[in-house]
Amino acid sequence: MIFEEVVKRAVEETNGGLAAVIMARDGISLSQYLRSEIKMDLETLGIEYAGLLAEIMRASEAMDAGQLKEILLSTDKYQTILRILNPEFFIALIMSPGGNLGKGRFLLRVNAPAILKEL
Amino acid sequence: MIFEEVVKRAVEETNGGLAAVIMARDGISLSQYLRSEIKMDLETLGIEYAGLLAEIMRASEAMDAGQLKEILLSTDKYQTILRILNPEFFIALIMSPGGNLGKGRFLLRVNAPAILKEL
Repeated sequence: MIFEEVVKRAVEETNGGLAAVIMARDGISLSQYLRSEIKMDLETLGIEYAGLLAEIMRASEAMDAGQLKEILLSTDKYQTILRILNPEFFIALIMSPGGNLGKGRFLLRVNAPAILKEL
Repeated sequence: MIFEEVVKRAVEETNGGLAAVIMARDGISLSQYLRSEIKMDLETLGIEYAGLLAEIMRASEAMDAGQLKEILLSTDKYQTILRILNPEFFIALIMSPGGNLGKGRFLLRVNAPAILKEL
């Protein structure tokens, strides 16, 4: 299944990758992968991300900035990449602060078309 | 004045830089610079960014992700970097989609301490 493959590869092939999830805009996960040693509540994260996306999409519209494609969030504990797949789905990759952000972005971008084909 | 210098340099020295603004979390701009040929309503943008930051900070807390440091937003029309300076202020750099995101991030990061000294 392409979904499982993509989330696993995004985590395993990105230096610092911790977890990845393909998620519907309503916060329900379609597929997720968590590095075995990591404890993370992906349910809560998904709900928060979905809420953020709704808010950011609304703001983009208000700013006449066009369609949202990608969001990167850096905090003390995590770097997170959110890539919009289509109006209904997005993929998130959560990394450690020192992780390879460029590689993570690349992997999400190049794998998006394969995911989209099956959505 | 360091604020004026930093926003101008961030725009002029970043390939694709369009506008930069140092702003309080309540959406009031402290300093801003807009490339002369660009028309952009920085007031509206600032209010939207301030609202987004509040929402993202709330979500980061809910996710136990630690303090928010940086946000990158990519839309069809713009790439935007928001760097948190302190709990009260942030700096935003707005670039064209093909602009040099890495250079923009670098310039905001290295200039943050000089801004902070005067805040």
